[in-house]
Amino acid sequence: MSDVLGADVALTDLPLRDDLRGRSPYGAPQLDVPVRLNTNENPYPPPPELVADVAEAVREAAGTLHRYPDRDAVALREDLAAYLSGATGVAVSHRNVWAANGSNEVLQQVLQAFGGPGRSALGFEPSYSMHPILAAGTRTDWLPAPRRADFSLDGAQAAAIVAERRPDVVFVTSPNNPTGQVVPQQDLRALLDAAPGIVVVDEAYIEFCTEPSAIELIDEYPAKIIVSRTMSKAFAFAGGRLGYLAAAPAMIDALLLVRLPYHLSAPTQAAARAALRHAKATLGSVRALADERDRVVARLGELGFSPVHSDANFVLFGRFSDAHAAWQRYLDAGVLIRDVGIEGHLRVTIGTPEENDAFLAASKGLVDAVNEENTR
Amino acid sequence: MSDVLGADVALTDLPLRDDLRGRSPYGAPQLDVPVRLNTNENPYPPPPELVADVAEAVREAAGTLHRYPDRDAVALREDLAAYLSGATGVAVSHRNVWAANGSNEVLQQVLQAFGGPGRSALGFEPSYSMHPILAAGTRTDWLPAPRRADFSLDGAQAAAIVAERRPDVVFVTSPNNPTGQVVPQQDLRALLDAAPGIVVVDEAYIEFCTEPSAIELIDEYPAKIIVSRTMSKAFAFAGGRLGYLAAAPAMIDALLLVRLPYHLSAPTQAAARAALRHAKATLGSVRALADERDRVVARLGELGFSPVHSDANFVLFGRFSDAHAAWQRYLDAGVLIRDVGIEGHLRVTIGTPEENDAFLAASKGLVDAVNEENTR
Repeated sequence: MSDVLGADVALTDLPLRDDLRGRSPYGAPQLDVPVRLNTNENPYPPPPELVADVAEAVREAAGTLHRYPDRDAVALREDLAAYLSGATGVAVSHRNVWAANGSNEVLQQVLQAFGGPGRSALGFEPSYSMHPILAAGTRTDWLPAPRRADFSLDGAQAAAIVAERRPDVVFVTSPNNPTGQVVPQQDLRALLDAAPGIVVVDEAYIEFCTEPSAIELIDEYPAKIIVSRTMSKAFAFAGGRLGYLAAAPAMIDALLLVRLPYHLSAPTQAAARAALRHAKATLGSVRALADERDRVVARLGELGFSPVHSDANFVLFGRFSDAHAAWQRYLDAGVLIRDVGIEGHLRVTIGTPEENDAFLAASKGLVDAVNEENTR
Repeated sequence: MSDVLGADVALTDLPLRDDLRGRSPYGAPQLDVPVRLNTNENPYPPPPELVADVAEAVREAAGTLHRYPDRDAVALREDLAAYLSGATGVAVSHRNVWAANGSNEVLQQVLQAFGGPGRSALGFEPSYSMHPILAAGTRTDWLPAPRRADFSLDGAQAAAIVAERRPDVVFVTSPNNPTGQVVPQQDLRALLDAAPGIVVVDEAYIEFCTEPSAIELIDEYPAKIIVSRTMSKAFAFAGGRLGYLAAAPAMIDALLLVRLPYHLSAPTQAAARAALRHAKATLGSVRALADERDRVVARLGELGFSPVHSDANFVLFGRFSDAHAAWQRYLDAGVLIRDVGIEGHLRVTIGTPEENDAFLAASKGLVDAVNEENTR
């Protein structure tokens, strides 16, 4: 007998769906380590004026917490549209924008509307590991497609695969997570031309590169393209859980049919709007992180590692004969990075200069240890 | 040509799932009316000390908004467990508690884990209209079952139906929305004994009555029962979007397999914890609302209406020859109530004494108008 209510029953005793049996919950280990470079967070805390503005905005919203929030989050969507218009040069209306609790929820809604049982979604692997998990969660068949050996996307091959497999939804992550490369617009066009259904361009990391956004393609492919984004990375707002997307207004109408009513809390809406008012200051860190990324890549090369070209705030690098053992050695050195399950490789998030120095020092330690073993 | 990006494409041009075609988004009209008694909100704004505490809690959380929130929301679940333990007298651990963005998301996760394609969920109608919508969203077959003519649940008949239909998930709303009656524990036992799978007791309105919570049954039926709750109603926290449930720890383990990672934002977690610290003050309004409910029911009876017995913060009442026309007449009188689609009936949320007076005055106006028409 346990002293916790009902603890005598095990998961295997429950009538769980068969496809969930034996699975583990998704998520990187949340460990208390001095240097955490494992979840592609922005290392810079929000500036004090943003913190004060968020607190004040939530205080105002809290006065009516007994009322449901705006179900359609119109004011927030207007602010996101204004940001996107400024960032891309494309005139984006709030009718082109949808928001939810993280891009995971946005993408889940896309699959609820356009995927589901009897339908399929295709992605080019390795890519964001939540895409196949969201497909499984919505019972959408998952079709994995390959990348080149250097993890870049072969546009012509990708379009040919889409034309042949005819998935209902295609995911293209640009820049790709966990490998880092952006997908050029000509390759996106080839995919959009080939796709019979929806193409989701996942731009979670787009602010870290200078390539134009796929938002430029909405007017050309309004019945096909959805561009998803997040405030977690460039906006340093991972704790706020605000994902969004841009698409034709009819796409937003489709998502309204599957969204849970009142899905975005009043504090979340208020906090996100306050953070958007400080976009210029927050996005100032993006250039610094890109510079740090280039420094880390160069130094990893000097140390004898093989970093993959990155347009994002992380770097995939190898090669390790045993990537998981190497991950543990980084952890033992106080640096938490990510084993994303790609043979011979690990992924490091770009942190502050001090954090990156700690990571590079740990990397040198690994090299030295290997050399020492070889000379013994 | 529209000046909104991609607005030339219509919803019917998109490859929407067939089962969504022709549907309308869920949700009561959000109209700007003097007296809003349509969504069962608590009419009392949060007290100033709660507002200040929420703002301060979010200010603290905002300092680390660049980091992901606690994925498992352990501190919040501890606070919810402490509240439930105090309210029910049952020792509830945080391992018995799960939370998400509103009880809708909690219930969606339950259906993702235990429902889905090839499985079924059963509810006794009329009941909370989101239950069948959540079933449709997760492609769970929906089995509607009847109530008595007075909308109460016939426990023996309900158990017989469950034994015969063998649904994977049973929803029992207690007190029932939109009709108001609580389900006695002996009837819940009969349902639990008959059910082959999961029984969700939806206690969104339980604080408004004195019946014991179904949480008392978790230790007896750990592999079957899930008790869902919300902070929207009694806690006056509809804007905070915090739904939760109590069940055996293995049930929580099952939900971890389907929840989106980091689904609860740091501001939402912080605001909910702050609101829970003021539970005693907030719940003080519950008794007053129950007294007002009894006053409204009595007066509706005097006016010649037929109010249904209610254990919640709303009253279903009739009879109208044309309920929707009557709904419009209330609206014309500045009082927004809810047409829940039950023939001859409307639902009114219990508001402040002034709001209830306005509703009762409008009700008398309807009666007077009918009498005048009859005497002409």
